[in-house]
Amino acid sequence: MKKHNFSAGPAILPAAVIEEAAQAVTNYENVGLSLLEMSHRSKEVATFMTEAEELVKSLLGLGDDYAVLFLTGGASSQFYMVPMNLLGENETAAYVDTGAWSAKAIKEVSNFGNVEVLASSKETTYNYIPKGYEIPRNAKYLHITSNNTIYGTQYHDYPETDALLIADMSSDIFSRPFDASKFALIYAGAQKNLGPAGTTLVIVRKDILGKIERSIPTMLDYQTHIKKNSAFNTPPVYPIYVCLLTLRWLQAQGGLKAVEAKNKKKADLLYAEIDRNPFFEGTAALEDRSWMNVPFVCKNKDHEAAFMDYCTANGISGVKGHRSVGGFRASIYNAMPYESVEFLVELMKNFKPELVA
Amino acid sequence: MKKHNFSAGPAILPAAVIEEAAQAVTNYENVGLSLLEMSHRSKEVATFMTEAEELVKSLLGLGDDYAVLFLTGGASSQFYMVPMNLLGENETAAYVDTGAWSAKAIKEVSNFGNVEVLASSKETTYNYIPKGYEIPRNAKYLHITSNNTIYGTQYHDYPETDALLIADMSSDIFSRPFDASKFALIYAGAQKNLGPAGTTLVIVRKDILGKIERSIPTMLDYQTHIKKNSAFNTPPVYPIYVCLLTLRWLQAQGGLKAVEAKNKKKADLLYAEIDRNPFFEGTAALEDRSWMNVPFVCKNKDHEAAFMDYCTANGISGVKGHRSVGGFRASIYNAMPYESVEFLVELMKNFKPELVA
Repeated sequence: MKKHNFSAGPAILPAAVIEEAAQAVTNYENVGLSLLEMSHRSKEVATFMTEAEELVKSLLGLGDDYAVLFLTGGASSQFYMVPMNLLGENETAAYVDTGAWSAKAIKEVSNFGNVEVLASSKETTYNYIPKGYEIPRNAKYLHITSNNTIYGTQYHDYPETDALLIADMSSDIFSRPFDASKFALIYAGAQKNLGPAGTTLVIVRKDILGKIERSIPTMLDYQTHIKKNSAFNTPPVYPIYVCLLTLRWLQAQGGLKAVEAKNKKKADLLYAEIDRNPFFEGTAALEDRSWMNVPFVCKNKDHEAAFMDYCTANGISGVKGHRSVGGFRASIYNAMPYESVEFLVELMKNFKPELVA
Repeated sequence: MKKHNFSAGPAILPAAVIEEAAQAVTNYENVGLSLLEMSHRSKEVATFMTEAEELVKSLLGLGDDYAVLFLTGGASSQFYMVPMNLLGENETAAYVDTGAWSAKAIKEVSNFGNVEVLASSKETTYNYIPKGYEIPRNAKYLHITSNNTIYGTQYHDYPETDALLIADMSSDIFSRPFDASKFALIYAGAQKNLGPAGTTLVIVRKDILGKIERSIPTMLDYQTHIKKNSAFNTPPVYPIYVCLLTLRWLQAQGGLKAVEAKNKKKADLLYAEIDRNPFFEGTAALEDRSWMNVPFVCKNKDHEAAFMDYCTANGISGVKGHRSVGGFRASIYNAMPYESVEFLVELMKNFKPELVA
């Protein structure tokens, strides 16, 4: 039975990427070695690391004023590395709280400086993106979470600010075109839209670094990794390679404009069914609905176990909703084929609680 | 032509491990998904993470007073995480400087407390392991680098101390039995004896943690990861899986006693040829010679380019010595077959500088 992987992350990768990724484990480009045992100082690895950096810049339309890093430790490590590198002890950082990941990012700031939470949708289980808040003039930076995996909300317009704009884009990076040059720093764990677990993409405007007095451990200073092209120490070679394969795939799709069209088509199809189907309803505010993570519940909670069984019996995995929202969550990242969304929608159409329960 | 991979790291992995690792990328244990796209919260991944932790403890004979963590950031991140978690601002840590990695570890301590370097072999290009130094009574811990990849030296007896004993074992972990219970903390980047680049093994005696006042970022506190079995955030699933495959392979070899016998046989063969062959000489002090990394040079430097060409022409890769030592370095980690060492030794025997130059 074909599996349809709707997992929120680590998540589906393009079938072509997986095929090439397996080949590289067996014998990397006919070098006669597995990529798993090749030195990060080899010509082959150094070459593809550079290609990956260049592809990130090219897909996002960024120039050499930005550095592209492949680090480790997940977005969770960026939660403290951002203030550690950018926020002076007496300075203030502004955050918008749109979910569990925002909240975790906010929690790490006080070790380094002051934090001001401008707005939060926590009281309504983060089912919308706050807007219309004022950004304090003294804010060193404004931090947002562009897409909220658990709650299925997404910024469709980014805030305008004179402060440095910083975003955790773990769950929607490369899903559509946007003006990346408005951002001073973007970070993203790879395991949703970019690759397997094990590397974290950081895109940083170089001129914002080196401005504070704090003594930073070598490995935690972005400048260390910029100077050495992400190879100050041994980088996670294989996860980065799989990201490169995905970046090449994104480019071959026609770049972010083409990817956006496909993502919109998938999201439209699924939301239309949620809104039409008498058994289901969406949980996120209409105008903030995510194109990446689509949470929905049964109007009658007693039907949920039956629909979950129905999904499982038909090869659909990863659709269980996060415990804080309940119900279901279909993650339809870049790599998710339209056909799999169609398949899920068919199941929703055919769902008869009284028959399958 | 068969390749013989003598790289210092990322390094050779057992052929059987590579085969299973490639299969998991295509279809993990017939689940119908690639392991690269499977959730770290899936039953399958959670199960093998536990198996990996248990195998580490079992191979080292450790009990539940120790925690086994699979983190990221390399040994280089442990250089600061160790003092950050263990050293109070007014406390002193003792270090022995046996090479470039020791020196980098020492450099990170002053952000957190005092550091005392008890001994160093730097003046003789780190060609021996210092002994006979006094360990100050007030030392919170003593940090050593058990094997020095670049210089080919290795502790064959560990220091006796009442201080907490901490070791960077990146390049000789699991290469032989030792009394692991003498150590309070052991860390090792995976990419030499354990797996591919992308995860770092940390073995820590739990009672030493939580004793200092410092506020530590969540992701940098060992206790965060202990509480969540290395899955507080998304761990590097695939690199950890390949480590597990290697751990299973180590156990199937007969455990560390059997691995030691094989490693000794390989090292003895290679060192015997270095000592016998009129064209070569070793660079490390005899009593401190590493069983893992074997550096040697040509007595006549003019012969070195010729021997390097001869190696390359015969499918041997990764034997170029580090620039600080020069000449050659054959890394013969656990996964290196005896036959490949024999092959290298044959080349050394057949080497006639005047013919191949």
